[in-house]
Amino acid sequence: MVYLTRSEHFNAAHKLYNPAWTPEKNDATFGVCANQNWHGHNYDLYVTIKGEPHPDTGFVYDVKKLSILIREQVVDKLDHKNLNLDVPFMKDKMCSTENLAIAIWNELAPHLPEGVQLHCIKLYETARIYVEYFG
Amino acid sequence: MVYLTRSEHFNAAHKLYNPAWTPEKNDATFGVCANQNWHGHNYDLYVTIKGEPHPDTGFVYDVKKLSILIREQVVDKLDHKNLNLDVPFMKDKMCSTENLAIAIWNELAPHLPEGVQLHCIKLYETARIYVEYFG
Amino acid sequence: MVYLTRSEHFNAAHKLYNPAWTPEKNDATFGVCANQNWHGHNYDLYVTIKGEPHPDTGFVYDVKKLSILIREQVVDKLDHKNLNLDVPFMKDKMCSTENLAIAIWNELAPHLPEGVQLHCIKLYETARIYVEYFG
Amino acid sequence: MVYLTRSEHFNAAHKLYNPAWTPEKNDATFGVCANQNWHGHNYDLYVTIKGEPHPDTGFVYDVKKLSILIREQVVDKLDHKNLNLDVPFMKDKMCSTENLAIAIWNELAPHLPEGVQLHCIKLYETARIYVEYFG
Amino acid sequence: MVYLTRSEHFNAAHKLYNPAWTPEKNDATFGVCANQNWHGHNYDLYVTIKGEPHPDTGFVYDVKKLSILIREQVVDKLDHKNLNLDVPFMKDKMCSTENLAIAIWNELAPHLPEGVQLHCIKLYETARIYVEYFG
Amino acid sequence: MVYLTRSEHFNAAHKLYNPAWTPEKNDATFGVCANQNWHGHNYDLYVTIKGEPHPDTGFVYDVKKLSILIREQVVDKLDHKNLNLDVPFMKDKMCSTENLAIAIWNELAPHLPEGVQLHCIKLYETARIYVEYFG
Repeated sequence: MVYLTRSEHFNAAHKLYNPAWTPEKNDATFGVCANQNWHGHNYDLYVTIKGEPHPDTGFVYDVKKLSILIREQVVDKLDHKNLNLDVPFMKDKMCSTENLAIAIWNELAPHLPEGVQLHCIKLYETARIYVEYFG
Repeated sequence: MVYLTRSEHFNAAHKLYNPAWTPEKNDATFGVCANQNWHGHNYDLYVTIKGEPHPDTGFVYDVKKLSILIREQVVDKLDHKNLNLDVPFMKDKMCSTENLAIAIWNELAPHLPEGVQLHCIKLYETARIYVEYFG
Repeated sequence: MVYLTRSEHFNAAHKLYNPAWTPEKNDATFGVCANQNWHGHNYDLYVTIKGEPHPDTGFVYDVKKLSILIREQVVDKLDHKNLNLDVPFMKDKMCSTENLAIAIWNELAPHLPEGVQLHCIKLYETARIYVEYFG
Repeated sequence: MVYLTRSEHFNAAHKLYNPAWTPEKNDATFGVCANQNWHGHNYDLYVTIKGEPHPDTGFVYDVKKLSILIREQVVDKLDHKNLNLDVPFMKDKMCSTENLAIAIWNELAPHLPEGVQLHCIKLYETARIYVEYFG
Repeated sequence: MVYLTRSEHFNAAHKLYNPAWTPEKNDATFGVCANQNWHGHNYDLYVTIKGEPHPDTGFVYDVKKLSILIREQVVDKLDHKNLNLDVPFMKDKMCSTENLAIAIWNELAPHLPEGVQLHCIKLYETARIYVEYFG
Repeated sequence: MVYLTRSEHFNAAHKLYNPAWTPEKNDATFGVCANQNWHGHNYDLYVTIKGEPHPDTGFVYDVKKLSILIREQVVDKLDHKNLNLDVPFMKDKMCSTENLAIAIWNELAPHLPEGVQLHCIKLYETARIYVEYFG
């Protein structure tokens, strides 16, 4: 078994805001992240898959096809978007990095070819904060 | 003469949108960057000053004081903000990285102590795009 | 289960020196790292915790609180210190990166809130050398 | 148990080409990577070993000895080489990053001292593509 | 005047070899870089242009157009190529990073639009070696 | 004219302390950097030289020779040292990054070969603080 990772990037706006709470409770809980006018990030996404290298190619999976898959299923839906307003699969969810990583897993997993398993979604919100989700 | 650089970071939302233009012309010119619901970035800011090291300290300027100055005059006004809506010194300007770097220079330059000159504002919008302004 | 990582930094002096050995054996074993006048590093510390995202916030744990916890329990005790002389929890231990990572785990683990588990301490001594400890 | 990682680097030429296939099938499968005149990469190699820190040194293993071992058993055989033509242990294998990581594991594992286990070979082909092999 | 930089990447094979010299002199001068079977690199290219931001857009030049220009005029001719064999504009030149940077300048400069000047070609051969050319 | 840069690294201990001042004034001025038991850094050093590429080699200067020169004249005197105690060329100087960069210039400049000029010493104390000296 070999693990293959490809990174992609997207830039997006969001805010942390629980609509069931008062503005005061949102501010107290999320601080500047609750700014009603939004803020944003350059997100770095690392997708790790695992499988056996194919004897004819030496590939677990063609990394160019993996890149296209990530862009079509995930990045094109998130890049230069407002994560709270523009992304159907984040609707009615708190827009934390944790929830975003889980949602990216759920978008991507059904589209991997036979013989290849999704292993990890690693998502950097900043250079010093990241989450990992293993399904 | 020695050049001293300190980097700071801020996360912000923005869009590229010229209000004198039609939505169609904005889309044609700025593409996804014109998304009306905003997008955002992790901006990396490098501030370079120059001067002679002081014989008593070996410092051009105390880099901790420089960091505080950058945060008070610039980062606190930009971090977790919407650059188009929340930042008085960007009001009525196109919110490009070029214009943001010039505006940061103008905010910071008057506050440097005697004997120290601002040399360069270098601003990364993404890891692969940056601008530099030398006054 | 989601894994959340926050990185912090500290700069410290240390040496590798076993007081039960002769200076010659220390030099033969540790080479330049045994320099009696010390050397030092910029240490990069990655703390990974795991848990379930809370439905109200989407957070495994508020990463700002995690940052404060790491600074109070670990970084403030190590930053701009001599690891051999100034740090009670390293007293009478060989000051290797391995032992430092284990000690950081032991300092931090008791202070995590209920529902959150410490998963990994990853500590870079240089950009090309790091250790990981999983408890 | 503590995990210790050391990174090393090598620069090499290679191509992806299955000699059992026609040139057309190679081009269709591997695209520009099948260029008959070769292309190349700066490979970043991360070798992770695991063990108990020794009470006398605090070391899982002396990282300088680990660096020498990696260079002698692996890097000296790959650096500034053509991976398809110059490397006996890649002969008759598809020269993918996956297969290269497995081959590096097989070269290195027999040479680790008692009490130390090889845990992971992580190999970056570019800054955005890497594979991991755990034996 | 504002300076705008965009980075692009290409992976290529090359060797350092002066055909007017004996193999022995080539080996003595270029060492492992003269390996007749080639080696290769991940090259990082930083293109810096300068100009006045346009009042309508805030742009010195649309960075997406700059990226397309660099790819069409430079990267597509170098990526996954053998720099000695496959690149017309490197023919009969020593394939050093210095000469490659000068050649990239000459390819790119004629294609910049009016009002924008090429300022610098910065080319990394490895993470620790780069050259800069200012025309 | 082409500019060629090579980076090297060293790890060292130091403190900021003016012996003409009281301990109280040192603490007030330098804060934690005045810790009498020292602290330390991983310093990243970038040496830039300039010249014309030689027609026979394409080199401004052989970067391997430049690396050896930097190590012999600079890095070997600083690596795993105490900058205040162990380095003759820093004796009786405030051990700031500014003064260290100037001293490195003075050590290195006399040893460059004819036709090659030292252009810049760039020295990172941390990933977010660096100085540049141009002679």
